[in-house]
Amino acid sequence: MQVDIGNALSDVARPGVSEGALERLDERVARVHERIERGMADDEFGYAALNLPETTDATEIREAVEPLTDADHVLTVGIGGSALGAVTVSRALGLDGHAVLDNVDPAETRRVLDALPLADTAVHVVSKSGTTAETLANFLVVREAMTEAGVDWTERTVVTTGADGPLRAAAETEGLPALDVPEGVPGRFAALSTVGLVPAAILGGDVEGVLVGGRAARESLALSLFDSPAYAYGAVCYALENRGATTNAVMPYLESLEPFAEWFAQLWAESLGKDGLGQTPVRALGATDQHSQLQLYRAGRHDKLVTLVQSSERPDVPIPETDVAGLAYLGDGETTLGDLVDAEFAATEASLAAAGQPNVRLTVDPTPEGVGELLVAMEAACILVGELHGVETFTQPAVEWGKRAARGLLGGGEFEEADAVAEKRRLVVE
Amino acid sequence: MQVDIGNALSDVARPGVSEGALERLDERVARVHERIERGMADDEFGYAALNLPETTDATEIREAVEPLTDADHVLTVGIGGSALGAVTVSRALGLDGHAVLDNVDPAETRRVLDALPLADTAVHVVSKSGTTAETLANFLVVREAMTEAGVDWTERTVVTTGADGPLRAAAETEGLPALDVPEGVPGRFAALSTVGLVPAAILGGDVEGVLVGGRAARESLALSLFDSPAYAYGAVCYALENRGATTNAVMPYLESLEPFAEWFAQLWAESLGKDGLGQTPVRALGATDQHSQLQLYRAGRHDKLVTLVQSSERPDVPIPETDVAGLAYLGDGETTLGDLVDAEFAATEASLAAAGQPNVRLTVDPTPEGVGELLVAMEAACILVGELHGVETFTQPAVEWGKRAARGLLGGGEFEEADAVAEKRRLVVE
Repeated sequence: MQVDIGNALSDVARPGVSEGALERLDERVARVHERIERGMADDEFGYAALNLPETTDATEIREAVEPLTDADHVLTVGIGGSALGAVTVSRALGLDGHAVLDNVDPAETRRVLDALPLADTAVHVVSKSGTTAETLANFLVVREAMTEAGVDWTERTVVTTGADGPLRAAAETEGLPALDVPEGVPGRFAALSTVGLVPAAILGGDVEGVLVGGRAARESLALSLFDSPAYAYGAVCYALENRGATTNAVMPYLESLEPFAEWFAQLWAESLGKDGLGQTPVRALGATDQHSQLQLYRAGRHDKLVTLVQSSERPDVPIPETDVAGLAYLGDGETTLGDLVDAEFAATEASLAAAGQPNVRLTVDPTPEGVGELLVAMEAACILVGELHGVETFTQPAVEWGKRAARGLLGGGEFEEADAVAEKRRLVVE
Repeated sequence: MQVDIGNALSDVARPGVSEGALERLDERVARVHERIERGMADDEFGYAALNLPETTDATEIREAVEPLTDADHVLTVGIGGSALGAVTVSRALGLDGHAVLDNVDPAETRRVLDALPLADTAVHVVSKSGTTAETLANFLVVREAMTEAGVDWTERTVVTTGADGPLRAAAETEGLPALDVPEGVPGRFAALSTVGLVPAAILGGDVEGVLVGGRAARESLALSLFDSPAYAYGAVCYALENRGATTNAVMPYLESLEPFAEWFAQLWAESLGKDGLGQTPVRALGATDQHSQLQLYRAGRHDKLVTLVQSSERPDVPIPETDVAGLAYLGDGETTLGDLVDAEFAATEASLAAAGQPNVRLTVDPTPEGVGELLVAMEAACILVGELHGVETFTQPAVEWGKRAARGLLGGGEFEEADAVAEKRRLVVE
């Protein structure tokens, strides 16, 4: 992975960071790097995530899912970190056939189940606690749908969960293959574990390659941001946030990385959205969003860092020749779709710079190794930003209030938060 | 449609707007409403969009696509406003089988074409000018793929374009059914026209119902924001942006409105991202993003308005009974998935309010009429904000720089913007 931070420097962009400021920040980066290395060595909560490329046992995953590898479809039942990493990996590897139930919209649950050939579908249920309401509710619905379709769901299901809890108990009772969630790793940092790799393994993806790339990213961490792409990216995000870029728009020029932008949004928001800090992650997609968001990115407030993700190579899809007037420059028999998207990438990057809007270019390899490298590098970047901010990167305390309120509303116990719902201030216009 | 702005008031949220300030703003709303009505009466550029529910001829659309209604799949080839409205309408109507080529990623174009049964696919090509590079390049690739698959693409294609240009010429040469883009309407405001309704019409959707709902939204515009849901929403967005909510996170609790959040993001960004103004639209999804973005929305900066979109009703999908400990409150045989998502909606709304984070509730009917009403109401809200800001709502001048640069890079002429690309400031870490 390569990071080019030139367009985030203060001689190009506003806000921007000077090279001098980056050099001064680099002293803090060195201390954070030592902290991260210590956390990794001690397998401390959260920091342990960066060890996953070493500790995840791909062979164990392959053996557990072996009875399901005849399936052409995988349905992941999970939410948040229990779904996003898996979708990101399978889509980035170009694997089709991975569906997900990561919501409790009844119309959507029904739609997904109606569309799937259930006899040809492997189900991966993921919940660390084994009690996540959305996941368990959907799993109950899936089991019933499979039974109604004449499919023995116990033959088609693999579970990834913690050591205890209802999902573990169900796996033991029904004899389901069961994998462990990794110890000491929040869900959003668990893509390179059982949590993120099982669907890709069922669909025949190169999960070993993903782990190899993750190890490369881990090994590229160094004492200086000028020697480590992950830290260079994190340091620029931190410096620019402090200088006013409170939004980070992540814009891959690769459709296969569209879920990556979602995954990044969770990583950034849940890890860094604390104490009144944290960039707001915005999910974009190149070239499509040039026709949607670019007007704002160029001419709106100077409060955004745009992270442009470029692919180091493209498959060859020639644009057929045409004699249509005005299109000869495209349909000349030599230009490919890749040439077009690459030109648009370069043009957008330059157009942001010309408007003084800060942007960074990440160049990734569209290979399993490149995917693993990207994910682990972004995790390390996120941890760096959290350390520089001094926030608790690995927890998400603010979501507990709503969980208690919802549980109270559903009759799952007495919670004062549920009472607050009835007291809502209303001003209705209809 | 119902709008509840109670949680955006200054006695609840920071930033928030006082009722007194809204009353003072209401005088300006009245003047803007008169301006909008005048623009509609004169069919002025942009304002004409609000006339589409009256002027769009559903019968003409049905007749043009009639030869294609045997297709189970529709492929829209378009980008930006030529694709988002169509995807939003078909998905909101619950129609499956609508694919889209709205990018020029060669891997994605190949993936989409490989996955489609081309003999059973109708192609809808949309470009106002008929020269949009991405759209025309993809169309050339689609034609070739159909020919290679033994399908006569001239029998399977409908075109929506302007009066002149290469697409119009191709339609005439090949005898394709061709529809007109509406006059005086930017693409992002054209969902309720040929541009947005053709795929739904081919797939048997109730496009007439969408237009009925659009008319209802139009008729609900009034001289006071307290009498008009669309203006109430727009006025609160404007007031909160000025008070620091420079981000607008749109979070539908309906998967079928996921593309709506994308459509809204284009509407908001291209129309209002001007002169250093404009809220940054963020696309979210409930309940899923409670496990991703909610931590940031509650505990991050107070620079966000969260627009929560609730459904007025849900299909009945019961959660099967279970005796699993800890889940009895869900699997009691009476609770439905809809109960769960509704409880999560109310809990999230209250949790944001408890943290003093401003939010607004839009309640929509999950019907064709409700969809049309929502889209037109958001367009009117956007026009109101643009008028209040005094920006040019209906143009997108900032994207032209990049278009010229890309064209220059591809050998489509001499453009000085292309030279700027080579001068990029680089600081590479790898």
